[in-house]
Amino acid sequence: MTRLDTVIDRLKAQRSVLNAAAETLADTPGHILELGLGNGRTYDHLRHLFPDRDIYVFDMEVASHPDCRPDPAHLFLGPMVETLVSAADKLGPNAALVHADIGYGDRAATIRNVESLGPRIPALMRTGGIVLCDQSLDAIKALTAIALPADIAPGRYHAYRRE
Amino acid sequence: MTRLDTVIDRLKAQRSVLNAAAETLADTPGHILELGLGNGRTYDHLRHLFPDRDIYVFDMEVASHPDCRPDPAHLFLGPMVETLVSAADKLGPNAALVHADIGYGDRAATIRNVESLGPRIPALMRTGGIVLCDQSLDAIKALTAIALPADIAPGRYHAYRRE
Repeated sequence: MTRLDTVIDRLKAQRSVLNAAAETLADTPGHILELGLGNGRTYDHLRHLFPDRDIYVFDMEVASHPDCRPDPAHLFLGPMVETLVSAADKLGPNAALVHADIGYGDRAATIRNVESLGPRIPALMRTGGIVLCDQSLDAIKALTAIALPADIAPGRYHAYRRE
Repeated sequence: MTRLDTVIDRLKAQRSVLNAAAETLADTPGHILELGLGNGRTYDHLRHLFPDRDIYVFDMEVASHPDCRPDPAHLFLGPMVETLVSAADKLGPNAALVHADIGYGDRAATIRNVESLGPRIPALMRTGGIVLCDQSLDAIKALTAIALPADIAPGRYHAYRRE
């Protein structure tokens, strides 16, 4: 596998898990949380899948394509370890879907990020909501692992249900 | 098509044209030129496809993954409008393949880039060499358009033979 192969696999897996979650959540109300805006590709896909829902985005700053920018009312800018807490105060436990791409190239930094952000996610979610994450959140007791679409390679993505 | 769909299509097309060019060029000697290193994904794919050839890379600076960095002897750093000329002096017309991802999000900047870089490419290539470009180089007389793999959507990529 070259890095070109790897990124194609990763993006296809991301699209597959998002599309599957949209079907699963068709009858589950609630808003959408996107942890990490980046260039806005995933945000663009989310607003296509969930055109009638509020999509709140968390990032340090807005660096996305100009046409993939949430309005200020749907942005939580700053360190996520802080904004996830203020968002829980403001929005309550009402998210139907959390998509969290929180890994880095650096393994140690990824572990620290998962340990600091993961425990803050359940307070934002409604029962039956889904978390999709590029990292394992198995350590979070309020989340139960659920099956991924059949085309996802093991370990590529992680999916959970908020109990 | 969302931006996520678009990038998946674009990267799959890139892989497909690179793989097809490697087969076509199996019996054509010559080195490889990569215009734009970026994060090094395509470079990584090229060195997998052409393990025994020199791969020269052009970019303003090295910003790739640490494990996707050419050695200094295979790097031409600086404005490509200058480094393509100095590379032609140093390497001669000996490239079998030029891969040029030279488009920007900004259409006007892309046109300027194509107009300034495109005419400098043929001097680097041997007869029968292939140019793969995300932009049309139809205006370059020394290049003749050739067929793309069947799975490439029209306009997604452009392929040429150096006459």
